[in-house]
Amino acid sequence: MRTKAAVALAAGKPLEIMDVNLEGPKAGEVLVEIKATGICHTDEFTLSGADPEGLFPAILGHEGAGVVLEVGDGVTSLKPGDHVIPLYTPECRECEYCLHPKTNLCQAIRSTQGRGVMPDGTSRFSMLDGTPILHYMGCSTFSNHTVLPEIALAKIRPDAPFDKVCYIGCGVTTGIGAVINTAKVEIGSRAIVFGLGGIGLNVIQGLRLAGADQIVGVDLNPDKVPMAERFGMTHFVNPSEVEGDLVPYLVDLTKGGADYTFDATGNVQVMRAALECAHKGWGESIIIGVAPAGAEIATRPFQLVTGRVWRGTAFGGARGRTDVPKIVDWYMDGKIEIDPMITHTMPLEDINKGFDLMHEGKSIRSVVVY
Amino acid sequence: MRTKAAVALAAGKPLEIMDVNLEGPKAGEVLVEIKATGICHTDEFTLSGADPEGLFPAILGHEGAGVVLEVGDGVTSLKPGDHVIPLYTPECRECEYCLHPKTNLCQAIRSTQGRGVMPDGTSRFSMLDGTPILHYMGCSTFSNHTVLPEIALAKIRPDAPFDKVCYIGCGVTTGIGAVINTAKVEIGSRAIVFGLGGIGLNVIQGLRLAGADQIVGVDLNPDKVPMAERFGMTHFVNPSEVEGDLVPYLVDLTKGGADYTFDATGNVQVMRAALECAHKGWGESIIIGVAPAGAEIATRPFQLVTGRVWRGTAFGGARGRTDVPKIVDWYMDGKIEIDPMITHTMPLEDINKGFDLMHEGKSIRSVVVY
Repeated sequence: MRTKAAVALAAGKPLEIMDVNLEGPKAGEVLVEIKATGICHTDEFTLSGADPEGLFPAILGHEGAGVVLEVGDGVTSLKPGDHVIPLYTPECRECEYCLHPKTNLCQAIRSTQGRGVMPDGTSRFSMLDGTPILHYMGCSTFSNHTVLPEIALAKIRPDAPFDKVCYIGCGVTTGIGAVINTAKVEIGSRAIVFGLGGIGLNVIQGLRLAGADQIVGVDLNPDKVPMAERFGMTHFVNPSEVEGDLVPYLVDLTKGGADYTFDATGNVQVMRAALECAHKGWGESIIIGVAPAGAEIATRPFQLVTGRVWRGTAFGGARGRTDVPKIVDWYMDGKIEIDPMITHTMPLEDINKGFDLMHEGKSIRSVVVY
Repeated sequence: MRTKAAVALAAGKPLEIMDVNLEGPKAGEVLVEIKATGICHTDEFTLSGADPEGLFPAILGHEGAGVVLEVGDGVTSLKPGDHVIPLYTPECRECEYCLHPKTNLCQAIRSTQGRGVMPDGTSRFSMLDGTPILHYMGCSTFSNHTVLPEIALAKIRPDAPFDKVCYIGCGVTTGIGAVINTAKVEIGSRAIVFGLGGIGLNVIQGLRLAGADQIVGVDLNPDKVPMAERFGMTHFVNPSEVEGDLVPYLVDLTKGGADYTFDATGNVQVMRAALECAHKGWGESIIIGVAPAGAEIATRPFQLVTGRVWRGTAFGGARGRTDVPKIVDWYMDGKIEIDPMITHTMPLEDINKGFDLMHEGKSIRSVVVY
C-alpha cells in the first residue's frame, strides 16, 4: 500500500513529507493506522545527527496511538479494529529478560530493531522508486500507517483519545514508571526532580500518585513553575538563584537529602548532583535523561558506600503490553493528567514546526494528528 | 586504671607498646577487657597517613572481642562478665537511621566518634604524663582495656572463641553482610568478586551461604586460589592472563553478566569494571573497598539506564547489636568458617609484625591475642 510519512532523509535536515510504499504485515506482524504521534526529544536526538546509532533514510517517531488494520499469520492477541499503542520496548513474555522479575528490557527483537528493520531483517517501508526506508525504534509513527511486531503493541481501551494517550507511548510512561516501577517510591517520601520538561512533569505527577510528601522541582527556567505546580511540585529551586553550592542547599531543603532523586535533564553534571543530594543511608537516584554520546557520570565511591544507590530507567521500567493499558486506564479515570502537557497539535504536514517549537522551548509536547 | 596499648603516635610510624591511663566508664559507657583483635587494612590506612580524617596520637584497632568488666550508670543491656564484640557502627535503635528500614548507619555518636572521643566529647585514654590519646572508630581494640558506649557493643554467646570471632567485628560481617544485607543475593545467582583478600573471601563464603550457583573470583595473584576455592569460589580469573578486555571476558563467562558483582579492592578502575560486567537489565554492583582520598568512580550513564544498579556497603549493611550475635552463631554452628582465614596470631608486643605481614601480602588476617 501507499501511505504518507515524514521521512528523515539525512541527519540535520528537516523531515520531508512524502508518499511511501508500505508492505503488508508478515507472520507475527501487524499493520497499524497511526492516528496521532508525539514528537519526542529522542526523535530530535536522532534527527540532529547526535545519535551515533542513527540510520538514514528512516521514518522516525515512537510515541503513537492507532488502530489495527490487518494482522499477519500467527498473530493471536490482536485483531483489526483494536486500538493500540506502539512499544519501542516490546514485551515478548518469553525471553530471559521478560521472565526476569527485575527488568523490562525485552531483548526478543533488539538487534533487528537497532538496525531499523523488522525481525526478518527487512524493512516494510520504501520510497516510490524502491529505495528502502528504515524503521525507527521499531515504531515509525511519523507514518500514517506502519507495521510492527505483535509483541510491540499494547492493546488499549477503545474510548481513549488517540491525541492524548499517544503520549503514554513514551513520555508519560517513562516519567511515571521511573517513580513507580524503578524507584518504587513509598508514601511520604521526599523527592527531587531535576528538569521540568515533559519527562520531569510526568515524574512529578508520578510522585503525587505515589503519595510523596515533598516534591522539589529544579530548573533554570522559572516559566516552568505554574505547570509543575499543577502536576504536584511542592517546592521550586532555581539553581541560578542559589547562593553557594546546589547540593548542600537541596540536602538542607529535604532535611538531610531526598529519599529519591530523578535526573530528567541528560546532563551528566546534573546526574552527579542528583546522586549527591540523595539521603545518606538510603537515598536512591534514578537517571532518566539520555546523555550525549561518550559523556560519563562520576562521583566519589564514598557516596555509595554511605548508602546512596545509583540507578537508571528505560521506558520507566514498564512492561509495555502489561503496563501501558493500565496507565491508559489511569488517565481515563482521572488519576493522572495528560491534556495540559499536549501544548500543540498539528497535521503531519507541519511536523517540522513541532521540532521548531521544541528547539525554542515553547512546547511541552507537540502531537501530530493524522 | 592502667592498661597496655599499642599507640599510634604519628602517621607513618610503627605503633608503640606502652602503658596508658584509662578512665572508667561514664554514664552509658562500658569498660571492656579486649581478649583478641584483628589487624585490618583500615587500621593500616589510617596509620599510613593516607586517611585524611586520621588523628594522632590514637589507639587504633576496631576488630575485637572481649569481656565486660564494668558498666557505667544507666547501662541496662550489658553486665560484667558478658562477652562482647565492639561495633564501629553502633546501633542505638532510636535515631532516624536505626528506625529506617534501609540502612545500618546509626548516627547517634557519629560526630564524636569521628573526632576520636566518647559521646561527652572527651577521651578516656591518656599518656602517663596526662597527654590525651584519642579513640579510633569508637573502638580502640589495640588496647588491652577500652571503654565504649553501650550502643557500640554486641553481646555474644560465651562459648565463642575470642581469637576467631573478633574477625566478625569487621571483615567477616563486611563481606558476608554485603551479600546478604546489601545485595540480598538470591539462590542460583551468578556473582563476581574482585579481590581475594580477607573481605573478598568473606564475600565468597557469603555467596556460598546464599546459594549462588557461580562464584567467580578475580585477582592478580594466583596464590589466592586454593583458599578462595575452599570458601566457595567456582571460577578463577587472573586479569593478567586474559587476552583483550576483562569486562567482555567476564560477561561471557557469566553468560551475559553477573547478577551481582562485588569490589573488594578499593581501586576505582576495578569498581568500574565490576559495574560494567553486571548483567544488563538487573545486575547490581556493590562497592565494599575504600578508595584513596579524592578518587572517583565513573561510567557512562547508559550502563545504569540499561538496568545496572550501583551500590555501596559499610559494615556489610549489618545492624551490629542485632546481626553480629547471629553471625557468631553461624560460625559456632559451622555455617561459616573463620579459622583458616586467621593465618597469624601474635601477642600485642609483636603487633607491628602483623602490619608487616599485611604489607608483604603474607597474611589474610593477623590477630593479636592479649
